[in-house]
Amino acid sequence: MRKIYVIGIGAGDPDHLTLQAAKAIGRTDVFFLLDKGEAKDSMIELRRRLMKAYAKPSRRIAEAADPSRDRAPQDYEGTVADWRHRRSAVTEALISEHLMDGETGSFLVWGDPSLYDSTIAILDEILTRGQTLFEYEVIPGISSVSALAAKHKIGLNRVGQPFQVTTGRRLAEGWPEGVPDVVVMLDAQQAFTAHPEAEIHWGAYVGTPDEILRSGQVSEVADEILKTRAAARAQHGWIMDTYLLRRPD
Amino acid sequence: MRKIYVIGIGAGDPDHLTLQAAKAIGRTDVFFLLDKGEAKDSMIELRRRLMKAYAKPSRRIAEAADPSRDRAPQDYEGTVADWRHRRSAVTEALISEHLMDGETGSFLVWGDPSLYDSTIAILDEILTRGQTLFEYEVIPGISSVSALAAKHKIGLNRVGQPFQVTTGRRLAEGWPEGVPDVVVMLDAQQAFTAHPEAEIHWGAYVGTPDEILRSGQVSEVADEILKTRAAARAQHGWIMDTYLLRRPD
Ligand SMILES: C[S@@+](CC[C@H](N)C(=O)[O-])C[C@H]1O[C@@H](n2cnc3c(N)ncnc32)[C@H](O)[C@@H]1O
Ligand SMILES: C[S@@+](CC[C@H](N)C(=O)[O-])C[C@H]1O[C@@H](n2cnc3c(N)ncnc32)[C@H](O)[C@@H]1O
Repeated sequence: MRKIYVIGIGAGDPDHLTLQAAKAIGRTDVFFLLDKGEAKDSMIELRRRLMKAYAKPSRRIAEAADPSRDRAPQDYEGTVADWRHRRSAVTEALISEHLMDGETGSFLVWGDPSLYDSTIAILDEILTRGQTLFEYEVIPGISSVSALAAKHKIGLNRVGQPFQVTTGRRLAEGWPEGVPDVVVMLDAQQAFTAHPEAEIHWGAYVGTPDEILRSGQVSEVADEILKTRAAARAQHGWIMDTYLLRRPD
Repeated sequence: MRKIYVIGIGAGDPDHLTLQAAKAIGRTDVFFLLDKGEAKDSMIELRRRLMKAYAKPSRRIAEAADPSRDRAPQDYEGTVADWRHRRSAVTEALISEHLMDGETGSFLVWGDPSLYDSTIAILDEILTRGQTLFEYEVIPGISSVSALAAKHKIGLNRVGQPFQVTTGRRLAEGWPEGVPDVVVMLDAQQAFTAHPEAEIHWGAYVGTPDEILRSGQVSEVADEILKTRAAARAQHGWIMDTYLLRRPD
Protein backbone atom coordinates (compact mmCIF):
# COMPACT_ATOMS: atom_id res chain seq x y z
CA MET A 1 0.00 0.00 0.00
CA ARG A 2 1.06 3.58 -0.64
CA LYS A 3 0.69 6.19 2.07
CA ILE A 4 0.20 9.93 1.65
CA TYR A 5 0.41 12.71 4.23
CA VAL A 6 -1.36 16.02 3.74
CA ILE A 7 0.75 18.16 6.05
CA GLY A 8 -0.27 21.61 7.26
CA ILE A 9 2.97 23.60 7.51
CA GLY A 10 1.64 26.85 8.99
CA ALA A 11 1.10 30.18 7.34
CA GLY A 12 4.62 31.49 6.78
CA ASP A 13 6.71 31.17 9.94
CA PRO A 14 8.90 28.02 9.78
CA ASP A 15 8.41 27.71 13.55
CA HIS A 16 4.65 27.25 13.03
CA LEU A 17 5.54 23.67 12.16
CA THR A 18 4.20 21.14 14.65
CA LEU A 19 6.20 18.21 15.98
CA GLN A 20 3.68 15.92 14.28
CA ALA A 21 4.34 17.63 10.94
CA ALA A 22 8.12 17.52 11.40
CA LYS A 23 7.91 13.79 12.13
CA ALA A 24 5.76 13.15 9.05
CA ILE A 25 8.21 15.12 6.90
CA GLY A 26 10.96 12.90 8.31
CA ARG A 27 9.06 9.76 7.25
CA THR A 28 8.47 10.99 3.69
CA ASP A 29 10.05 9.32 0.66
CA VAL A 30 8.55 11.61 -1.99
CA PHE A 31 7.40 15.22 -1.72
CA PHE A 32 4.85 16.37 -4.26
CA LEU A 33 5.16 19.99 -5.34
CA LEU A 34 2.73 21.77 -7.59
CA ASP A 35 4.60 24.86 -8.69
CA LYS A 36 2.45 27.96 -8.92
CA GLY A 37 5.01 30.01 -10.81
CA GLU A 38 7.54 32.55 -9.67
CA ALA A 39 4.98 34.90 -8.08
CA LYS A 40 4.73 32.47 -5.20
CA ASP A 41 8.46 31.83 -4.88
CA SER A 42 8.51 32.45 -1.15
CA MET A 43 5.81 29.83 -0.59
CA ILE A 44 7.93 27.27 -2.44
CA GLU A 45 10.94 28.54 -0.50
CA LEU A 46 9.36 27.72 2.89
CA ARG A 47 8.62 24.19 1.70
CA ARG A 48 12.23 23.70 0.57
CA ARG A 49 13.50 25.02 3.86
CA LEU A 50 11.33 22.62 5.89
CA MET A 51 12.37 19.67 3.72
CA LYS A 52 16.00 20.62 4.18
CA ALA A 53 15.60 20.80 7.96
CA TYR A 54 13.42 17.73 8.61
CA ALA A 55 13.42 15.34 5.64
CA LYS A 56 15.73 12.38 5.21
CA PRO A 57 18.58 12.87 2.72
CA SER A 58 17.19 10.17 0.42
CA ARG A 59 13.85 11.96 -0.05
CA ARG A 60 12.83 12.68 -3.62
CA ILE A 61 10.85 15.59 -5.02
CA ALA A 62 8.19 15.08 -7.68
CA GLU A 63 7.23 18.36 -9.28
CA ALA A 64 4.65 19.42 -11.82
CA ALA A 65 3.31 22.74 -12.99
CA ASP A 66 0.04 23.74 -11.37
CA PRO A 67 -2.67 23.97 -14.05
CA SER A 68 -3.44 27.59 -14.84
CA ARG A 69 -6.63 29.16 -13.59
CA ASP A 70 -8.82 32.13 -14.37
CA ARG A 71 -8.36 34.43 -11.38
CA ALA A 72 -11.48 36.55 -11.96
CA PRO A 73 -14.02 34.16 -13.43
CA GLN A 74 -17.73 34.84 -13.97
CA ASP A 75 -18.67 31.47 -12.51
CA TYR A 76 -16.42 31.14 -9.45
CA GLU A 77 -17.52 27.74 -8.10
CA GLY A 78 -17.65 26.21 -11.60
CA THR A 79 -14.21 27.51 -12.49
CA VAL A 80 -12.69 26.27 -9.24
CA ALA A 81 -14.32 22.86 -9.71
CA ASP A 82 -12.91 22.63 -13.23
CA TRP A 83 -9.46 23.71 -12.04
CA ARG A 84 -9.61 21.21 -9.19
CA HIS A 85 -10.45 18.54 -11.72
CA ARG A 86 -7.46 19.37 -13.93
CA ARG A 87 -5.32 19.57 -10.82
CA SER A 88 -6.43 16.14 -9.71
CA ALA A 89 -5.36 14.67 -13.07
CA VAL A 90 -1.88 16.22 -12.72
CA THR A 91 -1.69 15.06 -9.08
CA GLU A 92 -2.78 11.54 -9.93
CA ALA A 93 -0.07 11.29 -12.57
CA LEU A 94 2.53 12.48 -10.05
CA ILE A 95 1.45 9.90 -7.48
CA SER A 96 1.20 6.96 -9.82
CA GLU A 97 4.55 7.71 -11.46
CA HIS A 98 6.63 8.63 -8.44
CA LEU A 99 5.23 6.87 -5.36
CA MET A 100 6.21 3.23 -5.18
CA ASP A 101 4.40 0.53 -3.26
CA GLY A 102 5.21 0.72 0.47
CA GLU A 103 6.46 4.31 0.15
CA THR A 104 5.20 7.49 1.81
CA GLY A 105 4.47 10.67 -0.11
CA SER A 106 3.61 14.12 1.25
CA PHE A 107 1.91 17.33 0.24
CA LEU A 108 3.10 20.34 2.22
CA VAL A 109 -0.01 22.49 2.50
CA TRP A 110 0.07 26.18 3.38
CA GLY A 111 -1.58 26.97 6.73
CA ASP A 112 -4.14 24.37 7.76
CA PRO A 113 -5.38 21.86 5.15
CA SER A 114 -9.02 22.31 6.25
CA LEU A 115 -9.20 25.98 5.28
CA TYR A 116 -9.77 27.04 1.65
CA ASP A 117 -7.39 24.42 0.30
CA SER A 118 -8.13 21.81 -2.34
CA THR A 119 -5.63 19.05 -1.52
CA ILE A 120 -8.09 16.86 0.43
CA ALA A 121 -10.81 17.20 -2.24
CA ILE A 122 -8.28 16.33 -4.95
CA LEU A 123 -7.13 13.17 -3.17
CA ASP A 124 -10.77 12.16 -2.60
CA GLU A 125 -11.48 12.73 -6.29
CA ILE A 126 -8.54 10.50 -7.26
CA LEU A 127 -9.66 7.76 -4.86
CA THR A 128 -13.21 7.98 -6.20
CA ARG A 129 -11.95 7.42 -9.76
CA GLY A 130 -10.40 4.24 -8.35
CA GLN A 131 -7.38 3.96 -10.68
CA THR A 132 -4.69 5.02 -8.22
CA LEU A 133 -4.93 3.64 -4.71
CA PHE A 134 -3.36 4.87 -1.48
CA GLU A 135 -4.27 5.63 2.09
CA TYR A 136 -3.89 9.13 3.41
CA GLU A 137 -3.72 11.07 6.64
CA VAL A 138 -4.16 14.79 7.32
CA ILE A 139 -1.93 16.67 9.77
CA PRO A 140 -3.39 19.97 10.98
CA GLY A 141 -1.39 23.17 10.71
CA ILE A 142 -1.45 26.71 12.09
CA SER A 143 -3.84 28.58 9.81
CA SER A 144 -3.35 32.17 8.67
CA VAL A 145 -6.43 32.94 10.79
CA SER A 146 -4.84 31.69 14.02
CA ALA A 147 -1.58 33.43 13.05
CA LEU A 148 -3.39 36.73 12.41
CA ALA A 149 -5.29 36.57 15.71
CA ALA A 150 -2.09 35.77 17.63
CA LYS A 151 -0.20 38.71 16.14
CA HIS A 152 -3.05 41.09 16.91
CA LYS A 153 -3.52 39.47 20.34
CA ILE A 154 -7.26 39.10 19.82
CA GLY A 155 -9.88 36.42 20.18
CA LEU A 156 -11.87 35.61 17.05
CA ASN A 157 -15.18 35.35 18.92
CA ARG A 158 -16.75 37.48 21.59
CA VAL A 159 -18.01 35.73 24.73
CA GLY A 160 -20.53 33.07 23.70
CA GLN A 161 -20.90 34.59 20.22
CA PRO A 162 -20.42 32.98 16.81
CA PHE A 163 -18.10 34.23 14.08
CA GLN A 164 -17.97 33.58 10.39
CA VAL A 165 -15.07 32.81 8.08
CA THR A 166 -15.69 33.98 4.55
CA THR A 167 -14.14 35.31 1.34
CA GLY A 168 -13.78 38.86 0.02
CA ARG A 169 -16.18 37.93 -2.77
CA ARG A 170 -18.88 36.99 -0.23
CA LEU A 171 -18.30 39.96 2.04
CA ALA A 172 -18.79 42.21 -0.99
CA GLU A 173 -22.41 40.97 -1.05
CA GLY A 174 -22.98 42.47 2.40
CA TRP A 175 -22.26 41.84 6.08
CA PRO A 176 -23.26 38.25 6.84
CA GLU A 177 -26.43 37.72 8.89
CA GLY A 178 -26.27 37.09 12.60
CA VAL A 179 -22.54 37.40 13.29
CA PRO A 180 -20.76 40.32 14.96
CA ASP A 181 -17.31 39.16 13.80
CA VAL A 182 -16.11 38.09 10.37
CA VAL A 183 -12.76 36.70 9.24
CA VAL A 184 -12.10 37.44 5.58
CA MET A 185 -9.70 35.48 3.35
CA LEU A 186 -9.01 35.51 -0.38
CA ASP A 187 -10.04 39.16 -0.70
CA ALA A 188 -8.88 40.62 -4.02
CA GLN A 189 -11.26 43.58 -3.79
CA GLN A 190 -10.76 44.98 -0.26
CA ALA A 191 -14.41 44.49 0.62
CA PHE A 192 -13.84 45.92 4.12
CA THR A 193 -14.07 49.48 2.76
CA ALA A 194 -17.88 49.09 2.65
CA HIS A 195 -17.95 48.84 6.48
CA PRO A 196 -16.52 52.13 7.80
CA GLU A 197 -18.02 51.63 11.27
CA ALA A 198 -16.34 48.26 11.84
CA GLU A 199 -13.04 47.66 13.59
CA ILE A 200 -10.46 45.90 11.42
CA HIS A 201 -7.44 43.78 12.34
CA TRP A 202 -5.55 43.34 9.09
CA GLY A 203 -2.40 41.40 8.33
CA ALA A 204 -0.37 40.65 5.21
CA TYR A 205 2.39 38.00 4.90
CA VAL A 206 1.68 37.18 8.56
CA GLY A 207 4.46 35.15 10.15
CA THR A 208 7.00 35.99 7.43
CA PRO A 209 9.76 38.62 7.58
CA ASP A 210 7.54 40.81 5.35
CA GLU A 211 4.64 40.82 7.82
CA ILE A 212 2.53 43.99 7.96
CA LEU A 213 -0.18 44.54 10.61
CA ARG A 214 -2.73 47.34 10.87
CA SER A 215 -5.69 47.84 13.22
CA GLY A 216 -8.32 50.47 13.84
CA GLN A 217 -11.72 51.67 12.83
CA VAL A 218 -12.16 51.08 9.09
CA SER A 219 -13.13 54.72 8.52
CA GLU A 220 -9.77 55.75 9.96
CA VAL A 221 -7.37 53.11 8.64
CA ALA A 222 -8.87 51.98 5.31
CA ASP A 223 -6.88 54.45 3.20
CA GLU A 224 -3.64 53.54 4.89
CA ILE A 225 -4.34 49.81 4.44
CA LEU A 226 -5.22 50.28 0.76
CA LYS A 227 -1.99 52.21 0.14
CA THR A 228 0.17 49.83 2.14
CA ARG A 229 -1.39 46.82 0.43
CA ALA A 230 -0.92 48.24 -3.09
CA ALA A 231 2.70 49.13 -2.39
CA ALA A 232 3.50 45.72 -0.86
CA ARG A 233 1.81 43.94 -3.73
CA ALA A 234 3.79 45.96 -6.28
CA GLN A 235 7.02 45.28 -4.42
CA HIS A 236 6.56 41.51 -3.96
CA GLY A 237 4.56 40.83 -7.13
CA TRP A 238 1.82 39.14 -5.04
CA ILE A 239 0.15 39.44 -1.68
CA MET A 240 -1.62 37.28 0.86
CA ASP A 241 -3.67 39.10 3.45
CA THR A 242 -6.43 38.26 5.91
CA TYR A 243 -8.44 40.33 8.33
CA LEU A 244 -10.96 40.21 11.12
CA LEU A 245 -13.85 42.69 10.97
CA ARG A 246 -15.67 43.44 14.23
CA ARG A 247 -18.99 45.19 14.24
CA PRO A 248 -19.35 47.66 17.13
CA ASP A 249 -21.55 46.39 20.00
CA MET B 1 10.03 44.59 32.28
CA ARG B 2 8.15 41.33 32.74
CA LYS B 3 7.23 39.22 29.74
CA ILE B 4 4.31 36.82 29.35
CA TYR B 5 3.65 34.22 26.68
CA VAL B 6 0.15 32.98 25.93
CA ILE B 7 1.03 29.67 24.32
CA GLY B 8 -1.42 27.57 22.30
CA ILE B 9 -0.50 23.94 23.02
CA GLY B 10 -2.90 22.17 20.66
CA ALA B 11 -6.06 20.29 21.44
CA GLY B 12 -4.82 17.11 23.13
CA ASP B 13 -2.04 15.51 21.10
CA PRO B 14 1.39 16.46 22.56
CA ASP B 15 2.73 16.45 19.00
CA HIS B 16 0.37 19.31 18.09
CA LEU B 17 2.94 21.53 19.77
CA THR B 18 4.65 23.92 17.36
CA LEU B 19 8.37 24.61 17.36
CA GLN B 20 7.56 28.19 18.29
CA ALA B 21 5.59 26.99 21.32
CA ALA B 22 8.33 24.54 22.37
CA LYS B 23 10.90 27.36 22.21
CA ALA B 24 8.71 29.69 24.26
CA ILE B 25 8.21 26.94 26.87
CA GLY B 26 11.99 26.61 26.98
CA ARG B 27 12.40 30.34 27.70
CA THR B 28 9.83 30.35 30.52
CA ASP B 29 10.80 31.01 34.14
CA VAL B 30 7.30 30.68 35.63
CA PHE B 31 4.30 28.71 34.38
CA PHE B 32 0.91 29.89 35.54
CA LEU B 33 -1.65 27.15 36.10
CA LEU B 34 -5.28 27.75 36.93
CA ASP B 35 -6.49 24.40 38.19
CA LYS B 36 -10.01 23.51 37.10
CA GLY B 37 -10.38 20.62 39.54
CA GLU B 38 -9.93 16.91 39.06
CA ALA B 39 -12.53 16.60 36.29
CA LYS B 40 -10.00 18.12 33.91
CA ASP B 41 -7.02 16.11 35.16
CA SER B 42 -5.95 15.05 31.68
CA MET B 43 -5.80 18.68 30.54
CA ILE B 44 -3.46 19.49 33.43
CA GLU B 45 -1.57 16.29 32.63
CA LEU B 46 -0.75 17.43 29.06
CA ARG B 47 0.59 20.71 30.40
CA ARG B 48 2.83 18.90 32.88
CA ARG B 49 4.08 16.61 30.19
CA LEU B 50 4.98 19.49 27.86
CA MET B 51 6.75 21.34 30.68
CA LYS B 52 8.70 18.21 31.52
CA ALA B 53 9.77 17.77 27.89
CA TYR B 54 10.59 21.37 26.92
CA ALA B 55 10.98 23.59 29.99
CA LYS B 56 14.26 24.36 31.73
CA PRO B 57 14.86 22.52 35.00
CA SER B 58 14.81 25.79 36.98
CA ARG B 59 11.29 26.69 35.85
CA ARG B 60 8.78 27.36 38.59
CA ILE B 61 5.05 26.68 38.66
CA ALA B 62 2.62 29.18 40.15
CA GLU B 63 -0.77 27.63 40.74
CA ALA B 64 -4.12 28.88 41.90
CA ALA B 65 -7.63 27.47 41.94
CA ASP B 66 -9.78 28.59 39.05
CA PRO B 67 -12.75 30.59 40.41
CA SER B 68 -15.91 28.52 40.27
CA ARG B 69 -18.55 29.23 37.68
CA ASP B 70 -22.21 28.55 37.09
CA ARG B 71 -22.25 26.08 34.17
CA ALA B 72 -25.89 26.63 33.21
CA PRO B 73 -26.57 30.28 33.93
CA GLN B 74 -29.63 32.27 32.89
CA ASP B 75 -27.51 35.17 31.70
CA TYR B 76 -24.65 33.48 29.83
CA GLU B 77 -22.64 36.53 28.71
CA GLY B 78 -23.07 38.28 32.06
CA THR B 79 -22.01 35.20 34.01
CA VAL B 80 -18.96 34.64 31.81
CA ALA B 81 -17.99 38.32 32.12
CA ASP B 82 -18.26 38.11 35.90
CA TRP B 83 -16.25 34.88 36.01
CA ARG B 84 -13.63 36.43 33.74
CA HIS B 85 -13.40 39.34 36.11
CA ARG B 86 -12.84 37.11 39.15
CA ARG B 87 -10.37 35.10 37.13
CA SER B 88 -8.45 38.21 36.20
CA ALA B 89 -8.09 39.10 39.90
CA VAL B 90 -6.67 35.65 40.68
CA THR B 91 -4.41 35.84 37.62
CA GLU B 92 -3.15 39.29 38.52
CA ALA B 93 -2.23 38.11 42.00
CA LEU B 94 -0.32 35.17 40.52
CA ILE B 95 1.62 37.41 38.16
CA SER B 96 2.47 40.10 40.64
CA GLU B 97 3.57 37.63 43.32
CA HIS B 98 5.48 35.14 41.22
CA LEU B 99 6.90 36.88 38.15
CA MET B 100 10.00 38.93 38.91
CA ASP B 101 11.30 41.83 36.87
CA GLY B 102 13.14 40.59 33.78
CA GLU B 103 11.50 37.17 33.98
CA THR B 104 9.25 35.36 31.51
CA GLY B 105 5.95 33.75 32.49
CA SER B 106 3.67 31.54 30.40
CA PHE B 107 0.10 30.41 30.17
CA LEU B 108 -0.32 27.09 28.37
CA VAL B 109 -3.65 27.47 26.59
CA TRP B 110 -5.65 24.53 25.28
CA GLY B 111 -5.96 24.53 21.47
CA ASP B 112 -5.56 27.97 19.93
CA PRO B 113 -5.76 31.02 22.22
CA SER B 114 -8.00 32.89 19.73
CA LEU B 115 -10.88 30.43 20.01
CA TYR B 116 -13.34 30.54 22.93
CA ASP B 117 -10.59 31.15 25.46
CA SER B 118 -10.40 33.98 27.98
CA THR B 119 -6.65 34.29 28.62
CA ILE B 120 -6.10 37.23 26.23
CA ALA B 121 -9.12 39.13 27.55
CA ILE B 122 -7.94 38.55 31.13
CA LEU B 123 -4.45 39.90 30.44
CA ASP B 124 -5.95 42.92 28.67
CA GLU B 125 -8.21 43.51 31.67
CA ILE B 126 -5.21 43.41 34.02
CA LEU B 127 -3.23 45.81 31.82
CA THR B 128 -6.21 48.16 31.64
CA ARG B 129 -6.40 48.30 35.45
CA GLY B 130 -2.78 49.45 35.24
CA GLN B 131 -1.51 48.04 38.57
CA THR B 132 0.51 45.14 37.20
CA LEU B 133 2.61 45.80 34.13
CA PHE B 134 4.08 43.37 31.61
CA GLU B 135 4.36 42.86 27.90
CA TYR B 136 2.84 39.81 26.31
CA GLU B 137 2.93 37.77 23.14
CA VAL B 138 0.49 35.18 21.78
CA ILE B 139 1.66 31.95 20.13
CA PRO B 140 -0.97 30.28 17.96
CA GLY B 141 -1.85 26.62 18.47
CA ILE B 142 -3.66 23.81 16.69
CA SER B 143 -7.32 24.32 17.57
CA SER B 144 -9.76 21.50 18.24
CA VAL B 145 -11.47 22.61 15.01
CA SER B 146 -8.36 22.01 12.87
CA ALA B 147 -7.73 18.76 14.75
CA LEU B 148 -11.31 17.57 14.14
CA ALA B 149 -11.18 18.42 10.42
CA ALA B 150 -7.83 16.65 10.02
CA LYS B 151 -9.07 13.45 11.67
CA HIS B 152 -12.20 13.43 9.51
CA LYS B 153 -10.14 14.42 6.43
CA ILE B 154 -12.54 17.20 5.53
CA GLY B 155 -12.37 20.85 4.60
CA LEU B 156 -14.36 23.22 6.81
CA ASN B 157 -15.63 25.28 3.88
CA ARG B 158 -17.03 24.29 0.50
CA VAL B 159 -15.52 25.95 -2.58
CA GLY B 160 -15.84 29.72 -2.21
CA GLN B 161 -18.41 29.36 0.61
CA PRO B 162 -18.37 30.75 4.13
CA PHE B 163 -18.70 28.74 7.32
CA GLN B 164 -19.60 29.69 10.84
CA VAL B 165 -18.08 28.73 14.17
CA THR B 166 -20.61 28.80 16.97
CA THR B 167 -21.69 27.29 20.28
CA GLY B 168 -24.27 24.61 21.09
CA ARG B 169 -26.31 27.27 22.84
CA ARG B 170 -26.49 29.35 19.64
CA LEU B 171 -27.18 26.42 17.34
CA ALA B 172 -30.12 25.52 19.57
CA GLU B 173 -31.71 28.81 18.42
CA GLY B 174 -31.73 27.55 14.82
CA TRP B 175 -29.44 26.98 11.86
CA PRO B 176 -27.46 30.20 11.32
CA GLU B 177 -28.41 32.33 8.31
CA GLY B 178 -26.48 32.14 5.08
CA VAL B 179 -23.98 29.38 5.84
CA PRO B 180 -24.04 25.80 4.58
CA ASP B 181 -21.47 24.60 7.14
CA VAL B 182 -21.31 25.14 10.89
CA VAL B 183 -18.65 24.17 13.41
CA VAL B 184 -20.11 23.74 16.89
CA MET B 185 -18.13 23.97 20.12
CA LEU B 186 -19.11 24.04 23.79
CA ASP B 187 -22.28 22.05 23.14
CA ALA B 188 -23.76 20.72 26.39
CA GLN B 189 -27.16 20.02 24.81
CA GLN B 190 -26.39 18.12 21.57
CA ALA B 191 -28.10 20.72 19.44
CA PHE B 192 -27.32 18.77 16.26
CA THR B 193 -30.31 16.49 16.88
CA ALA B 194 -32.60 19.26 15.57
CA HIS B 195 -31.02 18.91 12.09
CA PRO B 196 -31.70 15.33 10.94
CA GLU B 197 -31.03 16.17 7.26
CA ALA B 198 -27.51 17.50 7.92
CA GLU B 199 -24.29 15.53 7.70
CA ILE B 200 -22.28 15.49 10.92
CA HIS B 201 -18.58 14.97 11.56
CA TRP B 202 -18.29 14.56 15.31
CA GLY B 203 -15.25 14.07 17.52
CA ALA B 204 -14.64 13.76 21.25
CA TYR B 205 -11.25 13.97 23.00
CA VAL B 206 -9.77 14.50 19.52
CA GLY B 207 -6.01 13.97 19.43
CA THR B 208 -5.93 12.10 22.76
CA PRO B 209 -5.78 8.32 23.29
CA ASP B 210 -9.52 8.48 24.14
CA GLU B 211 -10.47 9.98 20.77
CA ILE B 212 -13.87 8.99 19.36
CA LEU B 213 -14.99 9.93 15.82
CA ARG B 214 -18.38 9.48 14.18
CA SER B 215 -19.74 10.67 10.81
CA GLY B 216 -22.92 10.32 8.83
CA GLN B 217 -26.32 11.80 8.27
CA VAL B 218 -27.68 13.09 11.60
CA SER B 219 -30.89 11.09 11.20
CA GLU B 220 -28.80 7.92 11.01
CA VAL B 221 -26.03 8.54 13.54
CA ALA B 222 -27.56 10.85 16.17
CA ASP B 223 -28.67 8.04 18.49
CA GLU B 224 -25.33 6.34 18.32
CA ILE B 225 -23.52 9.65 19.04
CA LEU B 226 -25.82 10.42 21.98
CA LYS B 227 -25.21 6.99 23.49
CA THR B 228 -21.47 7.05 22.87
CA ARG B 229 -21.19 10.55 24.28
CA ALA B 230 -23.14 9.73 27.44
CA ALA B 231 -21.08 6.60 28.07
CA ALA B 232 -17.76 8.39 27.50
CA ARG B 233 -18.80 11.24 29.74
CA ALA B 234 -19.79 8.85 32.50
CA GLN B 235 -16.53 6.97 32.15
CA HIS B 236 -14.18 10.00 32.13
CA GLY B 237 -16.26 12.27 34.34
CA TRP B 238 -16.17 15.00 31.67
CA ILE B 239 -16.17 15.37 27.90
CA MET B 240 -14.95 17.75 25.26
CA ASP B 241 -16.48 17.33 21.83
CA THR B 242 -16.81 19.36 18.65
CA TYR B 243 -18.54 18.78 15.36
CA LEU B 244 -19.04 20.09 11.86
CA LEU B 245 -22.60 20.15 10.51
CA ARG B 246 -23.02 20.27 6.74
CA ARG B 247 -26.35 21.13 5.18
CA PRO B 248 -27.07 19.09 2.03
CA ASP B 249 -26.57 21.08 -1.23
C1 LIG C 1 -6.14 29.48 -0.62
S1 LIG C 1 -6.26 30.20 0.98
C2 LIG C 1 -5.33 29.06 1.93
C3 LIG C 1 -5.46 29.25 3.41
C4 LIG C 1 -4.58 28.32 4.23
N1 LIG C 1 -4.96 26.91 4.05
C5 LIG C 1 -4.58 28.69 5.70
O1 LIG C 1 -4.90 27.85 6.55
O2 LIG C 1 -4.24 29.84 6.00
C6 LIG C 1 -5.19 31.59 0.79
C7 LIG C 1 -5.60 32.77 1.65
O3 LIG C 1 -5.12 32.56 2.96
C8 LIG C 1 -4.76 33.80 3.56
N2 LIG C 1 -3.34 33.71 3.96
C9 LIG C 1 -2.55 32.63 3.86
N3 LIG C 1 -1.35 32.86 4.40
C10 LIG C 1 -1.38 34.11 4.90
C11 LIG C 1 -0.45 34.93 5.60
N4 LIG C 1 0.77 34.47 5.92
N5 LIG C 1 -0.82 36.19 5.94
C12 LIG C 1 -2.06 36.64 5.65
N6 LIG C 1 -2.97 35.93 4.98
C13 LIG C 1 -2.65 34.67 4.61
C14 LIG C 1 -5.04 34.88 2.53
O4 LIG C 1 -6.32 35.40 2.79
C15 LIG C 1 -5.02 34.11 1.24
O5 LIG C 1 -5.82 34.74 0.27
C1 LIG D 1 -13.43 26.69 26.02
S1 LIG D 1 -13.37 26.01 24.41
C2 LIG D 1 -11.64 26.11 24.06
C3 LIG D 1 -11.28 25.83 22.63
C4 LIG D 1 -9.78 25.82 22.39
N1 LIG D 1 -9.19 27.13 22.61
C5 LIG D 1 -9.46 25.34 20.96
O1 LIG D 1 -8.79 26.04 20.21
O2 LIG D 1 -9.86 24.21 20.64
C6 LIG D 1 -13.63 24.30 24.77
C7 LIG D 1 -14.34 23.55 23.65
O3 LIG D 1 -13.37 23.20 22.67
C8 LIG D 1 -13.72 21.97 22.10
N2 LIG D 1 -12.57 21.04 22.27
C9 LIG D 1 -11.38 21.35 22.84
N3 LIG D 1 -10.53 20.32 22.76
C10 LIG D 1 -11.19 19.33 22.12
C11 LIG D 1 -10.82 18.02 21.71
N4 LIG D 1 -9.61 17.51 21.95
N5 LIG D 1 -11.77 17.28 21.07
C12 LIG D 1 -12.98 17.77 20.80
N6 LIG D 1 -13.37 19.01 21.16
C13 LIG D 1 -12.49 19.79 21.81
C14 LIG D 1 -14.99 21.49 22.76
O4 LIG D 1 -16.07 21.91 21.94
C15 LIG D 1 -14.98 22.24 24.05
O5 LIG D 1 -16.29 22.44 24.53
